[in-house]
Amino acid sequence: MTHISIIGKGNMGQAIAGIATKGGNTVELFDTSDTDQVATGDIVVLAIPYPAVAGVIAARSDQLAGKVVVDITNPLNFETFDSLVVAADGSATAEIAAALPQSRVLKAFNTTFAATLVSGAVGPVPTTVLIAGEDADAKALLAGVIAAGGLNAIDAGTLNRARELEALGFLQLALAVNEKVAWTGGFGVIA
Amino acid sequence: MTHISIIGKGNMGQAIAGIATKGGNTVELFDTSDTDQVATGDIVVLAIPYPAVAGVIAARSDQLAGKVVVDITNPLNFETFDSLVVAADGSATAEIAAALPQSRVLKAFNTTFAATLVSGAVGPVPTTVLIAGEDADAKALLAGVIAAGGLNAIDAGTLNRARELEALGFLQLALAVNEKVAWTGGFGVIA
Repeated sequence: MTHISIIGKGNMGQAIAGIATKGGNTVELFDTSDTDQVATGDIVVLAIPYPAVAGVIAARSDQLAGKVVVDITNPLNFETFDSLVVAADGSATAEIAAALPQSRVLKAFNTTFAATLVSGAVGPVPTTVLIAGEDADAKALLAGVIAAGGLNAIDAGTLNRARELEALGFLQLALAVNEKVAWTGGFGVIA
Repeated sequence: MTHISIIGKGNMGQAIAGIATKGGNTVELFDTSDTDQVATGDIVVLAIPYPAVAGVIAARSDQLAGKVVVDITNPLNFETFDSLVVAADGSATAEIAAALPQSRVLKAFNTTFAATLVSGAVGPVPTTVLIAGEDADAKALLAGVIAAGGLNAIDAGTLNRARELEALGFLQLALAVNEKVAWTGGFGVIA
């Protein structure tokens, strides 16, 4: 059993809370504005949009030290829908890892639409969460939580692969917004 | 019916030739070394590895003028398997489009393993070819060839999206090489 904090009560935060609860973990779920609530989880999921991340880090960097911190963001320019807003050779996750040197930062959940986390399926394919990050133990801990919640998890590589996961998330969002894929579909992972 | 040239007799070139033939198009398939064979197709598919592209362009830029040129490459650093070798904010397709200003250059087929082009399926999901490029008519022409050959095709956006398609192709190759997905699987597109 793992103790998990989820900051962000949107569709993604609630879906991830559901997975973690289903797997028998303890979960605390609160909003970005709940700044007086201390994140006590061994895993802290930042289930917030990219522009909100810097503020949460500034407010909670002490709390996040020693924790596994999970970044789910897709750092798009939502005005143009034509680029990411992070460095072309970097990622939001790399930025967060640099800002939280005492945390073990992972990328996950940015390539799975909320509906596919709730249903457990991307069309006919079981939902798979792709995880990237430097720390193998942290990745295994998160993968265990995901598997206990009934989904597949794949270690997609080191922190460098967060760049490709963000590109994948971007492409998937662009296809969904343009009605080329459904919000219950997108990219299914066939192992 | 479209007349299609495919340069490159590897797995991908043969698979694409099969699709085009199945759809009732005329196909000429030859090797990179067949430099005396003129590419006469309305569509010319460069079914060759990224390092071979510059040589083919140098030898055939006149032939390629006015044609729809299809880039299928995944421009990986295959020594490190940790990055692409093109500019971080660019793509192989953007390079090729710059080198062939009189051609209409498209990205396609780089996110579909050869086996999934032959079988028509990524696991339980029908194979979808993602296409990116500037010219809508060129994309529609290629999408028609793909559909006639029994596969799905999706217009994934402008030339800028080739960057994300190459990131997706890179990630899929990295997962397959690390045995996280099968060469008959990978990312299926669920519309």
